[in-house]
Amino acid sequence: MSNGHIVIGEIFGTAVLILLGGGVCAAVTLKKSKAKDAGWVAITFGWGFGVLGGAYIANGYSGGHLNPAVTLAIAIKTGEWGKVPYYLIGQFAGAMIGAFLVWVVYMGQFKAHLTDAEVVTGHDVDPAGPVTRDESLPGGPVLGVFSTGPEIRNPVQNLLTEIIATAVLALFILTQGMTQGLALNGLGILLTALLVVGIGLSLGGPTGYAINPARDLGPRIVHALLPLPNKGGSDWSYAWIPVVGPLAGAALAGGLYRLFFT
Amino acid sequence: MSNGHIVIGEIFGTAVLILLGGGVCAAVTLKKSKAKDAGWVAITFGWGFGVLGGAYIANGYSGGHLNPAVTLAIAIKTGEWGKVPYYLIGQFAGAMIGAFLVWVVYMGQFKAHLTDAEVVTGHDVDPAGPVTRDESLPGGPVLGVFSTGPEIRNPVQNLLTEIIATAVLALFILTQGMTQGLALNGLGILLTALLVVGIGLSLGGPTGYAINPARDLGPRIVHALLPLPNKGGSDWSYAWIPVVGPLAGAALAGGLYRLFFT
Amino acid sequence: MSNGHIVIGEIFGTAVLILLGGGVCAAVTLKKSKAKDAGWVAITFGWGFGVLGGAYIANGYSGGHLNPAVTLAIAIKTGEWGKVPYYLIGQFAGAMIGAFLVWVVYMGQFKAHLTDAEVVTGHDVDPAGPVTRDESLPGGPVLGVFSTGPEIRNPVQNLLTEIIATAVLALFILTQGMTQGLALNGLGILLTALLVVGIGLSLGGPTGYAINPARDLGPRIVHALLPLPNKGGSDWSYAWIPVVGPLAGAALAGGLYRLFFT
Amino acid sequence: MSNGHIVIGEIFGTAVLILLGGGVCAAVTLKKSKAKDAGWVAITFGWGFGVLGGAYIANGYSGGHLNPAVTLAIAIKTGEWGKVPYYLIGQFAGAMIGAFLVWVVYMGQFKAHLTDAEVVTGHDVDPAGPVTRDESLPGGPVLGVFSTGPEIRNPVQNLLTEIIATAVLALFILTQGMTQGLALNGLGILLTALLVVGIGLSLGGPTGYAINPARDLGPRIVHALLPLPNKGGSDWSYAWIPVVGPLAGAALAGGLYRLFFT
Repeated sequence: MSNGHIVIGEIFGTAVLILLGGGVCAAVTLKKSKAKDAGWVAITFGWGFGVLGGAYIANGYSGGHLNPAVTLAIAIKTGEWGKVPYYLIGQFAGAMIGAFLVWVVYMGQFKAHLTDAEVVTGHDVDPAGPVTRDESLPGGPVLGVFSTGPEIRNPVQNLLTEIIATAVLALFILTQGMTQGLALNGLGILLTALLVVGIGLSLGGPTGYAINPARDLGPRIVHALLPLPNKGGSDWSYAWIPVVGPLAGAALAGGLYRLFFT
Repeated sequence: MSNGHIVIGEIFGTAVLILLGGGVCAAVTLKKSKAKDAGWVAITFGWGFGVLGGAYIANGYSGGHLNPAVTLAIAIKTGEWGKVPYYLIGQFAGAMIGAFLVWVVYMGQFKAHLTDAEVVTGHDVDPAGPVTRDESLPGGPVLGVFSTGPEIRNPVQNLLTEIIATAVLALFILTQGMTQGLALNGLGILLTALLVVGIGLSLGGPTGYAINPARDLGPRIVHALLPLPNKGGSDWSYAWIPVVGPLAGAALAGGLYRLFFT
Repeated sequence: MSNGHIVIGEIFGTAVLILLGGGVCAAVTLKKSKAKDAGWVAITFGWGFGVLGGAYIANGYSGGHLNPAVTLAIAIKTGEWGKVPYYLIGQFAGAMIGAFLVWVVYMGQFKAHLTDAEVVTGHDVDPAGPVTRDESLPGGPVLGVFSTGPEIRNPVQNLLTEIIATAVLALFILTQGMTQGLALNGLGILLTALLVVGIGLSLGGPTGYAINPARDLGPRIVHALLPLPNKGGSDWSYAWIPVVGPLAGAALAGGLYRLFFT
Repeated sequence: MSNGHIVIGEIFGTAVLILLGGGVCAAVTLKKSKAKDAGWVAITFGWGFGVLGGAYIANGYSGGHLNPAVTLAIAIKTGEWGKVPYYLIGQFAGAMIGAFLVWVVYMGQFKAHLTDAEVVTGHDVDPAGPVTRDESLPGGPVLGVFSTGPEIRNPVQNLLTEIIATAVLALFILTQGMTQGLALNGLGILLTALLVVGIGLSLGGPTGYAINPARDLGPRIVHALLPLPNKGGSDWSYAWIPVVGPLAGAALAGGLYRLFFT
């Protein structure tokens, strides 16, 4: 894989991941969407099929990591660190492009949602104060389309949740080659996508399962930059957790793999 | 593939796609259906498994495009345009047959729905005026069984939504050959069907995700022809968007593929 | 395949199909079940995974038809009729065993449901009169655990619905060998199971999608035999439709296959 | 497979199974979770994808049984009993680790749930008396995160339900080698995971489908040990059923396999 191919693959793949993942959050939470209130099952399958689409498109060029935590875990396993920067560049650029495309697809829904007096003055979005989050979704109805946020704000628990959830994902990917007849091909992508659905269903309750620094930080920057009226703050005080937690989880999985599976 | 095989494969495949896709819209929206109000997850999986069924049946004869946008994207990739007309003929004929079969399967439900005074005089169907749409479904309860319609009527956004959603689908299909060990076989059909579920969950909120000119225009013509009392208008002013948008999205994906993936 | 193997495979496979399929209807409709009111998505996936389990267990011995309509369609395709009786014996015996096992698994729920005054005197079960059906499920809450029933009782529509739905299933199975690299192996079983989910979501609204004479008639006989108090009638006047319709649909698919796909 | 590899594989695999399985119960039942009230479909898919993740991670080392009932059924089939103790050690250790990790991931939700006066004084948790269970979930909102409990407390029915449900799972696994081209590889894991979803949807209504002694007993011990205020009893009087039932079901499947499938 050339460095250029890696960047291109990761840009396209991560953009599709965030477009579908952020898209399903918009679809379920914003007003005037046909999928309004479709629930947590819809959100987790939407993200999972975003992994499916993005990893599949990227696969031929970059292997389809789409996630700095995955790249870190694989680097720990293989000891090859030279291509990591190209993965990261592609992942963050792709995540920002994807988040922007979510806004393009749902621009009317954002406007309807944010300019509706009932919403703006209600508990969902408070432009002056800290972000108040809807209990049933990954974040507040507007920031939650872009980035994750916790139901209970407790850095220790929030960090542990992200570490454990990401470690499951990373260990799954690291042990891929061990399973009979299963390389990271079409079937491997499908199984990984369904595992991500499972992680969302099972471990997404407390923090909305970032499990991917690019998935959270890239769209958060886009949220900060987009000139949406009444959009509220970007909750920067929480932003380090979905970056540090997934990377720590990936390092944990890499260490466990080297300790127990080699 | 002979031209005759292409036409036959696409007719059968697209008919099954529309029968299951339109069918799930009828199942969820019409009165006296066991699936009434089963929600957006049901609708998106119903369409996805429609792709699964149709593409699988058509696969041996035509490859199972079932969608002029897919045919266009593949023609841009391969440069082979000679068989395109046969695909289009099969796709539109199949879509119209499928839409007619939806009416056959749900004839009693259509009648119960349309002759119920509470419905006819309510906000769901207004035979005299413009179609007013149910916010939670692809369209109004009756036209929505056949064709898509936007939640917010804004040609620019509606077009962009269809372009972006179709480009994801087309890029996925164009990069199929690049993924290790994965041609357009049974597994490829499954992955494509699940991606279509994902596009519906994530990008279907604003317009109901036509992403296929034959899927929208063919059934719209059938809606216009069927002698259903109180059926309302066929919303022809919107009809160009689910034709032009998907074709533009396919062209965009074809261009991106040639620029970045070859 | 020996005749004995066919009978054994079809008995086990069809018993698992009906155990899981009837089971999910019990789970969603009976009182004192953890899955009460889980909805149509649960019902359709439960039946689909019943196909998965049953066809998989039977596959090595009988190919896993589990359905006289499938057996008929394959006999029309291959012209081999000699083993058909063994398939039918296994299918009906298995379906009756499966229906009995559903009663074993849910015996307390049946009792709680049928002896609850609020239910018995309500609209769900009317032991003296014709079966009144719950609009959101395959049948009335008790007979519906065993057999299908229509939302709107119209023999012509009901028959057409079963014919069309079964024809889709049968055509899917008949064209299996045409798809590249896909015989009736593990992947073929998965795809067929998911198609059955799709048929349920999309075409199950009017009649509850029997699409299988053994699936409907076998459990209906068990319903008639089981000494459940207040169970209501077995709706024999409808019983011919889910037998004749699926067989006619299979014959239609067989004819279409021979006409267009050979 | 060395004995050490078996223990390691089963520990990791079963820990992931219980982490995702217990996790989805916490996600859907505890307060302050984004997946609150996501329903039975979410629970069954969460457990199924827990099987997917755990079996996949363990596969290269131990084959990924994750369940003493599966180990028993395979021992009956193969006649090899020497490695059974290593499987059991790994399974119970892994299940307890997994249950502990569920508490780590959801620690804030447990606290919020158990210290909320409305909950503690309500019908959900009664610390002084017998555990009262929520009708729509595998158990009471707190014990139910760890272990199963019946909707109707009837040892005969509860035992029969667990026997039948486990026999389906075990027979599915025992007949794996008979299906053309399908060993216990990636696709076999996926099919098994989806069958577990199906068993949950269809047969989970009465008892919450333990179908695995380690899955139920290991976390129940953790529940008894964890110093959670107001957690209620661990319902030891029921604890033997989800141990004996699955083992009896596995023995039944093993006997049926030897009688009919060899």
